[in-house]
Amino acid sequence: MLYLIGLGLADETDVTVKGLELIKKVERVYIEAYTSILLVDTEKLEAYYGRPIIIADREMVESSSDEILAGADTSDIAFLVVGDPFGATTHTDLILRARELKIPVQSVHNASIMSAIGATGLQLYSFGQTLSMVFFTETWKPASFYDRLKENHQIGLHTLVLLDIKVKEQSLANLARGRKIYEPPRFMTVAQCASQMMEIEAEKCEGICGTKTLAIGVARIGARDQKIAAGTLEQLSDTDLGAPLHSLVILGRRTHYLERDFVREYAIDKAIFDAVWSEFYEGKQ
Amino acid sequence: MLYLIGLGLADETDVTVKGLELIKKVERVYIEAYTSILLVDTEKLEAYYGRPIIIADREMVESSSDEILAGADTSDIAFLVVGDPFGATTHTDLILRARELKIPVQSVHNASIMSAIGATGLQLYSFGQTLSMVFFTETWKPASFYDRLKENHQIGLHTLVLLDIKVKEQSLANLARGRKIYEPPRFMTVAQCASQMMEIEAEKCEGICGTKTLAIGVARIGARDQKIAAGTLEQLSDTDLGAPLHSLVILGRRTHYLERDFVREYAIDKAIFDAVWSEFYEGKQ
Repeated sequence: MLYLIGLGLADETDVTVKGLELIKKVERVYIEAYTSILLVDTEKLEAYYGRPIIIADREMVESSSDEILAGADTSDIAFLVVGDPFGATTHTDLILRARELKIPVQSVHNASIMSAIGATGLQLYSFGQTLSMVFFTETWKPASFYDRLKENHQIGLHTLVLLDIKVKEQSLANLARGRKIYEPPRFMTVAQCASQMMEIEAEKCEGICGTKTLAIGVARIGARDQKIAAGTLEQLSDTDLGAPLHSLVILGRRTHYLERDFVREYAIDKAIFDAVWSEFYEGKQ
Repeated sequence: MLYLIGLGLADETDVTVKGLELIKKVERVYIEAYTSILLVDTEKLEAYYGRPIIIADREMVESSSDEILAGADTSDIAFLVVGDPFGATTHTDLILRARELKIPVQSVHNASIMSAIGATGLQLYSFGQTLSMVFFTETWKPASFYDRLKENHQIGLHTLVLLDIKVKEQSLANLARGRKIYEPPRFMTVAQCASQMMEIEAEKCEGICGTKTLAIGVARIGARDQKIAAGTLEQLSDTDLGAPLHSLVILGRRTHYLERDFVREYAIDKAIFDAVWSEFYEGKQ
């Protein structure tokens, strides 16, 4: 059996009892370590589970999945995923490969940012499609997110934006020379995301994610020191929410007064929040 | 402190280790028992936690929240919620009330159907807004879901439909006479939901949820006996997925071939699935 086990969002105690019992008894334990991270390191997880963990990087999961699946027809393998096992699409591949090999698969679900984002006080059923934001470079600033954000915007829905993480990336120079030297991990901040969005808005000028657009930045959701800050993209581009992981929500205009009351508590500046809210959001169903 | 603790989706072992440790040590434990249910009963939870649990019905949460919050300024209270604590909006009220009373609040997130629906193989970021479907009666057939479904449909997104549950409802006769006699709980099935959607489509005729619309029905997600069935609404209206809880996804046309490969495995009839897919979904980005 291949067990896909979600680890939740923050630390080693966010695993479910069902998941923990399985981790303790399976033959091999892998952890997927490139689409998201827990806020504790693998050594801490190993000590907590009392089991060695094999780190599965993108290369292993995408090119050597048979290595992970080896023996799973006769014994049990656990594949740990931060959040819920179905948060990232990479795992669909792994399951399809398991099916081909006639290996049964079972999932142990857990919290995902897709639902935990409700901690902002925004109603989950008022969210449209989820977006990803990648790190811009000097020459590569993909703006495809803009059209999707516009689709949500036109309906009045909120938009969750998941922020890029770079783990085990090689520099172009090292890649060209085939040197397996990796850059330090990088995690996009809410401030960077807000800046990138305003940069694309300045080009497109359709009023989708400009300086006055209200958004909510969240950091380390589910951890004791989680932070939530609500304000305009301009304010958020200048707000430090601390250590990773960060995510951002662009507010839709189809809001409920309870959402307003809840979110206002997190306003960076309540006067600015109130002014922008009443000008652009209040009663704009 | 008020702890909002998610219980996950299926049984008593879906609680997180963090959640379980808190449940064991707080002063009082409530469970919200009207927006969703676990697949095991409260007695089993009490035995597993080693704690008595107070069942909080809608009336208590909405009208007597101070009773729940009593003493939470000096001691710890746990409020258990099936799925993730932020899945249902009722809890927003409870948190706002706690804030008024200066009671600190902390959440322990867990799996929600909003993300666990990824078990169908559909990509979570291709979902639009989530809908609810209520039980139709002879005289009350609210069709407001149709316009929202249409909004998702026009963009090509998938739509998760959460199905009505009726717990502790009184009959009109008993309500009128003030008799606190409750009807047995009712849980909408995928088949009922599919029928209701086709009924509204037959009135509106905009091609949003007709007999040939592809959908995926899921039952008891996260449990050992979970069931997933893909087919047209017509097929699903005639498919029995067994015991509750059920949910349904209306497929959007913006699909990925990996989604197709994954979902096809669950097809009620692969020939019909292939035919409908290639006529209405394939390449319809």
